[in-house]
Amino acid sequence: MAEKNRQWCLKRRVEASELIGAQNFEFIETDIPAPADGQVLVRTLVLGTSPAQRGYVSDGRSMHEKLAVGAVMRGRGVAVVVESKHAAFKPGDVLTASVGWQDYSVHTPTESNMSIFNIAKITNATKPLSLHIGLLGGAGATAYFGLLDVGQAKAGDTVVVSAAAGGIGSLAGQIAKLNGCRVIGICGSDAKAQWITRDLKMDGAINYKTENVEARLKELCPQGVKVFFDNVGGAVLEAVLNNLATRARIAICGFISTDYAIGQQSGLANYGNLVRNRARIEGFYIFDYIPRFAESEAKLRAWYEAGQISSCEDFDDGLERMPDTLASLFKGTNQGVKMNRVAPDP
Amino acid sequence: MAEKNRQWCLKRRVEASELIGAQNFEFIETDIPAPADGQVLVRTLVLGTSPAQRGYVSDGRSMHEKLAVGAVMRGRGVAVVVESKHAAFKPGDVLTASVGWQDYSVHTPTESNMSIFNIAKITNATKPLSLHIGLLGGAGATAYFGLLDVGQAKAGDTVVVSAAAGGIGSLAGQIAKLNGCRVIGICGSDAKAQWITRDLKMDGAINYKTENVEARLKELCPQGVKVFFDNVGGAVLEAVLNNLATRARIAICGFISTDYAIGQQSGLANYGNLVRNRARIEGFYIFDYIPRFAESEAKLRAWYEAGQISSCEDFDDGLERMPDTLASLFKGTNQGVKMNRVAPDP
Repeated sequence: MAEKNRQWCLKRRVEASELIGAQNFEFIETDIPAPADGQVLVRTLVLGTSPAQRGYVSDGRSMHEKLAVGAVMRGRGVAVVVESKHAAFKPGDVLTASVGWQDYSVHTPTESNMSIFNIAKITNATKPLSLHIGLLGGAGATAYFGLLDVGQAKAGDTVVVSAAAGGIGSLAGQIAKLNGCRVIGICGSDAKAQWITRDLKMDGAINYKTENVEARLKELCPQGVKVFFDNVGGAVLEAVLNNLATRARIAICGFISTDYAIGQQSGLANYGNLVRNRARIEGFYIFDYIPRFAESEAKLRAWYEAGQISSCEDFDDGLERMPDTLASLFKGTNQGVKMNRVAPDP
Repeated sequence: MAEKNRQWCLKRRVEASELIGAQNFEFIETDIPAPADGQVLVRTLVLGTSPAQRGYVSDGRSMHEKLAVGAVMRGRGVAVVVESKHAAFKPGDVLTASVGWQDYSVHTPTESNMSIFNIAKITNATKPLSLHIGLLGGAGATAYFGLLDVGQAKAGDTVVVSAAAGGIGSLAGQIAKLNGCRVIGICGSDAKAQWITRDLKMDGAINYKTENVEARLKELCPQGVKVFFDNVGGAVLEAVLNNLATRARIAICGFISTDYAIGQQSGLANYGNLVRNRARIEGFYIFDYIPRFAESEAKLRAWYEAGQISSCEDFDDGLERMPDTLASLFKGTNQGVKMNRVAPDP
């Protein structure tokens, strides 16, 4: 391996209202690390993205540990073992891990960190391998448990999904359909609206950039919104609060519209509708569902293998593009689970 | 009965920022009505109050039917039968009903309207009879189900109650103590703070008028707030959202601080903490719990008869004071369940 290891390292924390991008990172080359006893050297194949990654490198409040300036940017991905000094792994094995924004990384699998959100060997290696951090990984589990467990969506319910063309939203909308719900997706372009209704079979779409969301919800959900799977927050959440059905459930997955906005937020002025409609807003955190991941993975795999669900992947190609890949989440230009193809599947 | 029937009738709807009061009503005298076959004539003994009553006579949004101008003001109370043309009632029987703000009223008990929130005969007539619209009526049930069912308060939980010296809050705080919780009450005066800690045995109190609620919550609830029983909303709810424990539950009973305020509300800017803490806000409506009222009444009665809970009644005397009695809820001058003693218990 004469090759070098390319890495994106944190150069400067992202500022409150700044769109994260290449200016925050430095793209360097170092030597490929060597594994010690008990370690594996892996090569990154696919890197995933998450709005939470912005939290790692901002000064803002976050649920996650902050990344030090100079450190390799943190991120989960699919990787292949290229050299192993660990009994449970051999070259060619594939795994998901927090590999970081780099070509190569060394890991120390221990009994305690070999789990779905640490180092997880992929034993049922459905291809493309990107499925294992998308539909069959955190994105799928988030959509599944957020919709069915937190949102308690049931057949016949009118379900609204925001960022419905996004990674998690596109899966949540399809899972709702597979569970017998009527689904309205909110998204940011006519092309996305067409995609989620025609290809993903959602029952209706609202383009929040060109339409009055509150008025359109009133038209499309005349009985009110029973379950809202929210990735967005802010004005869209306010619009849904003004269109709640009795005993509605709102599962807050994220709030990309407001969490990184500047200055004082206006917030939910109309939360009183929660009382008028005996409704609920609940935030959730996918790590709490790790003990139940086998359940979501089995369901999602079965739907996928039966051709009933699309995995909705949106790829950029090349590690050098990774800052832009992450930035696309905040620009809303992605369609499906946004990932970066660092190297081809073996 | 040469006596007349005194009535408070709606003269003018209450305006958005107006404190409801005598200026909105007319106090008139009419003849005492005569019951027809199947009807009972009752005399009002006690009238209760609720913030919702303001909604009946405002132009604002309300869950309740609006009252016509000129009509007798609607309100629940305890009454005694003075004349009966109904087989199931005899003079001297006591009942709770929507008697309105008047001395005498005629009712038509039917099978379908003889229930806890329509015409309910008091068969276990613990005295004072006011208990049946306070501790053993809607106030007690609201505190009981809001805290234990919506809020899911359990032994060991740190519970915060807003308007903790108010009718429902004073009961919710005591019920939390009886269930093994640690209870911090938020209230509006040092006298109330002393009352809820010394007499009602809550573990701490915060005077929101003189103290920084958020900072004091941080001191008094170092592990965060696990359950919040909220009667107030607005800034107090924001302060609690900044002090949530993981998997916290917020039961919204009401929002007297904001529902009648003027202009655009600032709302919940920090609802993102619901995700960071995997927490829940849920609105509830006590009418949904009617099928379970026997459960709350039995528990509350047992605690009351064992001397373990105080009924916390705050009386005005005399029907002529009724507009002020209701206004006191919005001024926050009441301590306990605010009622008006229209006539002595028989």
